[in-house]
Amino acid sequence: MTDHPHGRGQLMADCRLRAATDLLTHGWDPVVLAALRDGPQRRHQLRTAIGTISEKVLTQTLRRLTDAGLITAQRYAQAPPRVDYALTALGTSFLEGPMAALAAWITRHGDELLQAQEHRIPH
Amino acid sequence: MTDHPHGRGQLMADCRLRAATDLLTHGWDPVVLAALRDGPQRRHQLRTAIGTISEKVLTQTLRRLTDAGLITAQRYAQAPPRVDYALTALGTSFLEGPMAALAAWITRHGDELLQAQEHRIPH
Repeated sequence: MTDHPHGRGQLMADCRLRAATDLLTHGWDPVVLAALRDGPQRRHQLRTAIGTISEKVLTQTLRRLTDAGLITAQRYAQAPPRVDYALTALGTSFLEGPMAALAAWITRHGDELLQAQEHRIPH
Repeated sequence: MTDHPHGRGQLMADCRLRAATDLLTHGWDPVVLAALRDGPQRRHQLRTAIGTISEKVLTQTLRRLTDAGLITAQRYAQAPPRVDYALTALGTSFLEGPMAALAAWITRHGDELLQAQEHRIPH
């Protein structure tokens, strides 16, 4: 990449970077992924585990993560209909890779980050 | 955290998570951080290294990263005035931690992610 004159600009032309950072942009995505870490969950179980998420936002988050291929919705034909949400292999790799690294960084440096923002010089 | 009934919701109440994910939300932030990996750079050097960034966006990006404490602007009183941008220890840790993990994941799984999005079922 460093041989290319626009090497670092190229990085952004890469749709894969955009798609991946989008997953961290939506605040609830990491939380829902983390809630599925220990195995498939039904919707009401996710609600209970997460606590403060609204029904609407939970619906949007589950849809976005399904679209991205990070989770699957397994539908069971029973009454009442049952849907289990589970991590895919891709979802697990995202949780264990970038998300774990971000969480570790926040644990270690999050206070510094907030402190810098509070003490910033007005422009 | 798991002992708390709203444990995973708590994660989002954490401003540090929001502040850190914001750094990945702005598309050019990682690119500018990466461009500073090998040492301080003047503005025109960044422009050359990155290639496709506009003056306006570069200004906004440098300001945001400075506000977040990830880079510093070192001003030299000379004519014409000279400003060197450099990573702080916090910036280096972000580059080497979460950003490196995200880049590694994209290299390995980025195509799967795009493929899933292209084949998604319309809702």
